[in-house]
Amino acid sequence: MKYLSILGSTGSIGTQTLDVVRNNPNEFRVKALSCNSNIEVLKKQIEEFNPEIVAVFDEEKGDLLKTDVDVYKGMNGLVKIATLQDADTIVNSLVGSIGVLPTVKALKSFKNVALANKETLVAAGSIVMDLVKKNNVSLMPIDSEHSAIFQCLNGEDAKSVNKITITCSGGAFKNKTKEELQNVMAADALKHPTWDMGAKITIDCATLMNKGFEVIEAHWLYNMPYDKIEVVLHPQSIVHSFVEFKDKIIMAQLGMPSMKIPIQYALTYPQRLENNSLPALDLTEKELIFKKPNFELFPCLKYAYDTGKIGGTLPAVMNAANEIAVHAFLSDKIGFLDIPRIIKEAMDNHKTINNPDIDEIMESDEWARDKAGELTK
Amino acid sequence: MKYLSILGSTGSIGTQTLDVVRNNPNEFRVKALSCNSNIEVLKKQIEEFNPEIVAVFDEEKGDLLKTDVDVYKGMNGLVKIATLQDADTIVNSLVGSIGVLPTVKALKSFKNVALANKETLVAAGSIVMDLVKKNNVSLMPIDSEHSAIFQCLNGEDAKSVNKITITCSGGAFKNKTKEELQNVMAADALKHPTWDMGAKITIDCATLMNKGFEVIEAHWLYNMPYDKIEVVLHPQSIVHSFVEFKDKIIMAQLGMPSMKIPIQYALTYPQRLENNSLPALDLTEKELIFKKPNFELFPCLKYAYDTGKIGGTLPAVMNAANEIAVHAFLSDKIGFLDIPRIIKEAMDNHKTINNPDIDEIMESDEWARDKAGELTK
Repeated sequence: MKYLSILGSTGSIGTQTLDVVRNNPNEFRVKALSCNSNIEVLKKQIEEFNPEIVAVFDEEKGDLLKTDVDVYKGMNGLVKIATLQDADTIVNSLVGSIGVLPTVKALKSFKNVALANKETLVAAGSIVMDLVKKNNVSLMPIDSEHSAIFQCLNGEDAKSVNKITITCSGGAFKNKTKEELQNVMAADALKHPTWDMGAKITIDCATLMNKGFEVIEAHWLYNMPYDKIEVVLHPQSIVHSFVEFKDKIIMAQLGMPSMKIPIQYALTYPQRLENNSLPALDLTEKELIFKKPNFELFPCLKYAYDTGKIGGTLPAVMNAANEIAVHAFLSDKIGFLDIPRIIKEAMDNHKTINNPDIDEIMESDEWARDKAGELTK
Repeated sequence: MKYLSILGSTGSIGTQTLDVVRNNPNEFRVKALSCNSNIEVLKKQIEEFNPEIVAVFDEEKGDLLKTDVDVYKGMNGLVKIATLQDADTIVNSLVGSIGVLPTVKALKSFKNVALANKETLVAAGSIVMDLVKKNNVSLMPIDSEHSAIFQCLNGEDAKSVNKITITCSGGAFKNKTKEELQNVMAADALKHPTWDMGAKITIDCATLMNKGFEVIEAHWLYNMPYDKIEVVLHPQSIVHSFVEFKDKIIMAQLGMPSMKIPIQYALTYPQRLENNSLPALDLTEKELIFKKPNFELFPCLKYAYDTGKIGGTLPAVMNAANEIAVHAFLSDKIGFLDIPRIIKEAMDNHKTINNPDIDEIMESDEWARDKAGELTK
């Protein structure tokens, strides 16, 4: 039996995590839930899963929530449920850099973390991995790609690895020309072909920034130099990633494009539980194709490699500027090609601090938000 | 350092095993070699690898071999090197049911066995696996498919497996009609598209009997019921096999079609050694396609499933009849479609003995050879 605190329980990963809990009532108990502002959904989740406490990030919305359980608010609320004594496993499915601090606090409180929040490792990879090691806790990836890599490695020595290859559906605009990209709208991107995801990540997929984040995450999770991490386009989204070992053998992990699979795996590893909610994957009905990505048309992926190699506070700046730019694009305030432009300009204006502490990372994040905010005007 | 006895060192797998030894001089010493009749090649191997003893199965040829090392002959010679005190690992790359007894004797002598001889598990799977368990030795598959399955399972519980899928290039005649198959010749089959193999296995690939053997081997090696073992055609021979777990995740192993990869893996597991003799596999240049096999046009695959389920001495009969029929086809004495016909007729005439001992298996093998011999006339 695992006792879960779920950060971001009303979002895409959060609700799918609760589906996994619902399907496996003997494996999990929910001890805490949290949302940003969607208190209507949170209220239903409280009724069904009966947590001890909940947190609402948006304090005004938190005041409106009528419930018998204790309600905590703001970042303090998120940290409260990330460090809850009665929970052993924290599911961090927050979106954005607000997810960084709860992960750090959870690890400091000796909690195991199942991590869907990409920004945690992008912004604070060094600090986070040091904590995982020092406190001897587990950090299991929920991302389908990193879950795939974890399973391909399956305990084998990092020194045996020639190369990690992260696959990429290519996003909503993979077949567009530069001219076409100038005029695409957020609504076009939100018709994402394969995965059921939140709006922000859908845009990150379309820019390939999401893939860039995954490259940085893979670097930290698997202690892998950047020149051993590769991205290939794989429009079918069946092969979730693969690893080449030094004997030239490749191990690949495949599955239906459903986040419930990596969520369940992260929560039950090393055990595998039945998954009866999905059909089996029939490879005789598929063709599997892989292509090299276009770094020129989608520069965010290259920014991520370059920024990851530089390290320090720069990845946090890249991430924060991206959040602001994507938000502006989702509000139709800027164009699609403005996203990489704003990210680059914010980074060009940042003085990177090497070996930052968590406060310096969060300050750089704040700085980048302001800077990118100006640039979106 | 591993000390090897190589049974069948002058054949396709044997010479590739010696390539692996040559490329890794600090990992292996060759203690014994054997051939069927190719004493010229054996002589060169003796000079290069300096074994303690050698065996020649063909006694007359053995008498002709001039060398300083001790030469043993016939089945006794094979058993001698399979049980050699100074060897810890026996590579069994014999072709045909003459490989069964040396494997059994090696396991009884507490040797680890790297097994390329398919007939060992087809004819005597129950006896062999009991010995592996009882003597706590390892039986590592050299077949690319079983090596792939081993790596996909990677220590996971057999109970977590939904299905093992063995891939199949389809063989030389995969695109032929029934009418065309009536007139194909051995020479046509020997132009096999992807793998570098011996003549007998090349024909077994063309009939899909080879795949049938692999189904039976997988049953024994991985303790898997036949209804959880599937075969799919995969003409590219890049995905060597895959395993679906009960959470609907598929793990697949991929690589260039070279037997040196599974040979090296079998000899170095759990370590992986560099393989600099092969280029890396570039998936961006491939399309991976999977199709269902045609059981009607290639009935040997179905015979293998049915025969495996019945068990007893029947798989040994199927194998021996196949050896005789393939030999006759290679000598242009019978047609391609006569191979399954002869196998079926031999099996139909056999009274299966349940839970046979090794003598009963070898007697059934002899009986089937005689019977199939009559049928090829």
